[in-house]
Amino acid sequence: MTDPSSRRRPTIDDVAREAGVSRGTVSRVLNGGHWVSPDALTAVNGAIKKTGYRINPHARSLATSRANSIAFLLTESHERLFEDPNFSVLMRGAAEALAERDMSLVLLMAGSDDEQRRATEFITAGHVDGVLLVSSHRGRQAFMSELVGSRVPAISCGIPLGFERKIGSVSADDAEGARVAVEHLRSLGRSRIATIAGPQDTSGGLTRLQGYRLEMDAGADDSLIAYGDYSRVSGAAAMRELLDRRPDLDAVFIGNDLMAAGALEVLAAAGRRVPEDVAVIGFDDSPVAVTTDPQLTTMRQPFERISHEMVRLLLQVIEGQPAATVTLPTELVVRASA
Amino acid sequence: MTDPSSRRRPTIDDVAREAGVSRGTVSRVLNGGHWVSPDALTAVNGAIKKTGYRINPHARSLATSRANSIAFLLTESHERLFEDPNFSVLMRGAAEALAERDMSLVLLMAGSDDEQRRATEFITAGHVDGVLLVSSHRGRQAFMSELVGSRVPAISCGIPLGFERKIGSVSADDAEGARVAVEHLRSLGRSRIATIAGPQDTSGGLTRLQGYRLEMDAGADDSLIAYGDYSRVSGAAAMRELLDRRPDLDAVFIGNDLMAAGALEVLAAAGRRVPEDVAVIGFDDSPVAVTTDPQLTTMRQPFERISHEMVRLLLQVIEGQPAATVTLPTELVVRASA
Repeated sequence: MTDPSSRRRPTIDDVAREAGVSRGTVSRVLNGGHWVSPDALTAVNGAIKKTGYRINPHARSLATSRANSIAFLLTESHERLFEDPNFSVLMRGAAEALAERDMSLVLLMAGSDDEQRRATEFITAGHVDGVLLVSSHRGRQAFMSELVGSRVPAISCGIPLGFERKIGSVSADDAEGARVAVEHLRSLGRSRIATIAGPQDTSGGLTRLQGYRLEMDAGADDSLIAYGDYSRVSGAAAMRELLDRRPDLDAVFIGNDLMAAGALEVLAAAGRRVPEDVAVIGFDDSPVAVTTDPQLTTMRQPFERISHEMVRLLLQVIEGQPAATVTLPTELVVRASA
Repeated sequence: MTDPSSRRRPTIDDVAREAGVSRGTVSRVLNGGHWVSPDALTAVNGAIKKTGYRINPHARSLATSRANSIAFLLTESHERLFEDPNFSVLMRGAAEALAERDMSLVLLMAGSDDEQRRATEFITAGHVDGVLLVSSHRGRQAFMSELVGSRVPAISCGIPLGFERKIGSVSADDAEGARVAVEHLRSLGRSRIATIAGPQDTSGGLTRLQGYRLEMDAGADDSLIAYGDYSRVSGAAAMRELLDRRPDLDAVFIGNDLMAAGALEVLAAAGRRVPEDVAVIGFDDSPVAVTTDPQLTTMRQPFERISHEMVRLLLQVIEGQPAATVTLPTELVVRASA
């Protein structure tokens, strides 16, 4: 036990004694918790609280040159962060996974070229130990090249198109998820199944469309395909276009829930009953899916697991291991729209 | 052209002029050549040779000891960031104001004690040049003391209770805003005016209640006062409490729009017509105010101006000037609820 009457500043040795572990274990916990068993981590964190041990941040950063923090780098506009609840779910999951290792998450928004340049400068200056890359459109080649060239550890959410072999990633199985969605619509007797695809410079947008085409086989007429940018308003516009072009459609598979929410509004305004006249299925199972009327049938992405896997892979890269690629299964969630 | 006879030491400006590029481009070349086109790189390297420019190592280490970024430190939970649109408006305004100075904003979420400890470590390790403090509850004394003790430049959004003389701040004129809101309700002939006050450990929550009491004068019966924590659900609970306690109330002044949105739902469920039976006025003019039924009459806080002022004051503190305190006027926005 630490002597409560002691006036001196508690040391690492005090913490080690209190936790019943070695000095090295305490040190590893202080440096991010790598290679520490969950039990030891709990014991050390408890001992830190009990002894009142406080890290000298200057000494620590000198000793380890670790920033002890990770960037959540969102290459999207501010609007998108707050419009699409998936980002908050991912961010929160990543923050939780990092908190278990006593590391912080810092959010960097980098939608524009200038923002990406500044974000790259911040990252390569060593202010973070690694990067969780979220929503990297293919158009952002210069930025991605810079990041890869800088050798800052990074893991992408979704396959980083053009950099598949250079950056590890965690994705849902988009192709299979899309295929299962269309299969579900078919099992309901639908045959004129349209799709609203996401942006074709993202792996999710591209691969979900491939899954749709695969399952539709000869039935995938181009007149049944429209495109959006994952926003609600783009889903509404694409739905109007499809109704115009193919008034006979009896189902729609939509590349994300937010576009589906926009599409449902257009269907209601056009007097089409969902699911009686048009069955609708989304993708994500985002919080939006239970706010629509009717509630949305959708393909669930395991966002919490995705964010935790991203953190796990990133810490491996930081420790010097080669980057892995993880694909996680999606799951059909049947609600009222299909 | 640089005058070869000049005896003074060539500067970055001389190099920029010689190369025909901006000062920023030269600076980027000197800091590693990121985000510089091959042509510009060649031109700048040529100009460095020609002018005889030599980096002043001291100046450079001073320059590079700047992180060129500012933390937006939100001492709230992740949920609150995404529930309350005011935060996104403030964050975006701050990011814009910083972008004009080629600086980045990094978001740190620090709701829990552990998150606040890690955020403090990150900030005091020099990974940012200063801090914009958003929503600092009074309970967070230890954290605030630490931050003040670290001498990291900081500016608070709202008056930092307990640290008024130690940290500069930018606030709306909460007392006067609340007073004008109540005055407006009175001008509509209302007399049994209740209030739902925000958290009493925040300056906004405290001061808006003071403004209400001031204008109500002898009419501010304690049975007319309920409290919330600025969330929608807390506004609904407080409204139920008030209806229970004072079924005769004919108006409510509510400390923020999000609580007002919750209160409006409770009033509708209780069969009270707004504004006929109960007039309702909020505070903020947040994006929520136009999504309620009826649309909300409210006191507008100039969020964009607040965020820009915060950045301006923070940069002054970073440059060594003593911290200022700014108060900005609010404005009555009359919609349908009062």
